[in-house]
Amino acid sequence: MNQVIQLLNSHRSIRKFTSQAVEQEQINQYIQAGQAAATSSFIQACTVIQVNHPDTRASLAEWAGNQTYVKDAPRFLVFCADMNRHRISCEMHDSEMLSGFTEQFITATVDCALFAQNVAIAAESEGLGVVYIGGLRNKINHVTDALSLPQLVYPVFGMCLGYPDQDPEVKPRLPLEVVLKQDRYDDSTDAELIATYDQTVRTYYQQRTGGQKEMSWSEQISTMLRKEARPHMLSFLQSRGYLRR
Amino acid sequence: MNQVIQLLNSHRSIRKFTSQAVEQEQINQYIQAGQAAATSSFIQACTVIQVNHPDTRASLAEWAGNQTYVKDAPRFLVFCADMNRHRISCEMHDSEMLSGFTEQFITATVDCALFAQNVAIAAESEGLGVVYIGGLRNKINHVTDALSLPQLVYPVFGMCLGYPDQDPEVKPRLPLEVVLKQDRYDDSTDAELIATYDQTVRTYYQQRTGGQKEMSWSEQISTMLRKEARPHMLSFLQSRGYLRR
Repeated sequence: MNQVIQLLNSHRSIRKFTSQAVEQEQINQYIQAGQAAATSSFIQACTVIQVNHPDTRASLAEWAGNQTYVKDAPRFLVFCADMNRHRISCEMHDSEMLSGFTEQFITATVDCALFAQNVAIAAESEGLGVVYIGGLRNKINHVTDALSLPQLVYPVFGMCLGYPDQDPEVKPRLPLEVVLKQDRYDDSTDAELIATYDQTVRTYYQQRTGGQKEMSWSEQISTMLRKEARPHMLSFLQSRGYLRR
Repeated sequence: MNQVIQLLNSHRSIRKFTSQAVEQEQINQYIQAGQAAATSSFIQACTVIQVNHPDTRASLAEWAGNQTYVKDAPRFLVFCADMNRHRISCEMHDSEMLSGFTEQFITATVDCALFAQNVAIAAESEGLGVVYIGGLRNKINHVTDALSLPQLVYPVFGMCLGYPDQDPEVKPRLPLEVVLKQDRYDDSTDAELIATYDQTVRTYYQQRTGGQKEMSWSEQISTMLRKEARPHMLSFLQSRGYLRR
C-alpha cells in the first residue's frame, strides 16, 4: 500500500484543533487542488465561500446544531453547488438558459463533492484535519441569506480545517462484500454481513467510550430513519431554481 | 507543493488504456480507500457494481452515448447511491423507514461522490488513469435493469480504470477568484474574469486540436444550457423511491 492510499485510509473527522494558523496560501492551494478534480462536462459548478467573520461563524455554528468547532476551527469553508456563473455565461452570449432540471442538480452537487474531497485530501496530506458539516442544511435558508447566495447557488456542506488537537480512531467500515458487487446487485447475504459488522461497530464504541455507548450500525441507521430528514429541503431548493423538473 | 497535492493537480480524464491488467486485489484496495472517505451521519450509502460481463459492458457503452472505452477499459465500475441496505437495517429492527426525502437523496449522492473520488485518487496514485462516466444517466432505466438494482439504489456515474495509453494535457480551470469568495457571494467581477479565462480555454483547445476547435468556456456552457438536461431524471428517481418529498 503506497503512502497516498495510506493517507486516504487514515481519514477520521477532526473536531478539535490547535491554535496553529492555517495560512491563506495553504487554503488557496487546497482550493486549486479541489478545482483539479473531474467536473461533469467541464461545468465547474463548485464555489467555496471562506467564512472569516466571527459573527457569521457563530451563527453558522448555531444553525448547524451548536457545533462549536464551526466557530472555533482555524478555517471554515462552505461548498456551494453553483450554476450562477452559468447564467452569467449564457447572458454573455445572449443565450437562453434552460434550468431547473434534476440532472443539473445532480451534476452540480457531484461536482461540489468531488472538489471538496480533493480539498480534504490536500489538507490532510499536509497534516491538517477536517470535518464535513452537513448540519448547515438544518437552516439552509438562513445560511443562504448570511452568505448572500444568489439564485442557482446552494450550500451543500461546510468544512472545518485546522491542525488536529485530538487523535480519534478510524471508524470501521462495512465489509467489502457489502459495498462491492460483481455484475449485478445481489443483497442476499447483506443482512448476515451487516449483523457481523454490527458487532465490530459495537466493540468500537465500547472501547472508545469506556462502555458508555454500544450501538450497532443497523440500530443507529434504523433509529435515524424513523425521523423526517430535513423536510424543508425540496421546497427550499425549488425556490432557488433547482429540482423544478 | 507535496507529492499528494501534485498528484491531485495532475488529474486528467483517460479514455485510452493499455492492455495491462488491473488485478482484483488492486480494485479491492481502491474500494476500501473509497470506503474510508467521510460519510454523512455514518450512512455509508455507496455501493459499487464492478461490471465484468462483456455483453453488459457493450450495452453500457452504447447507452452512455457510444463511449467505447466503457466497453474496452480494463475495469469498469458503477457507483450507486444506495439506501437499500438501510431498508434492510430497519427490517432487522422491525422499524419503520421514512424515505423519499430530498435530503436523503443529497446525502446518498454526496456519499457516493466522496467515495468515488477516493477511488480515483487511489488508482491514480498507482499510475492508473480514470474517467468518470455520467453518460450512464442517458438511459438510467436500462442501466438499472441491466444491473438488477433494487428500489432505493440509483447509478450516479460509472468509472473506467486502466493504465493510460494517452497523455492528454491538464485542462485549465477557472481563476481562483471566481471559485473562492470571502465571507459572501460577490459576482461583480465574474463576467470579466470569465472573459479572460475564455481566452485561456480557447488557446488550450487550439493547441490541443491543431486549430480545429477553439470554443471558449462560456460558449461551451451557453451552448450546452440551450438543451434540456436528461429530462427523464426526476420521474425516474421518484419511481425508485427518491425525491418524493
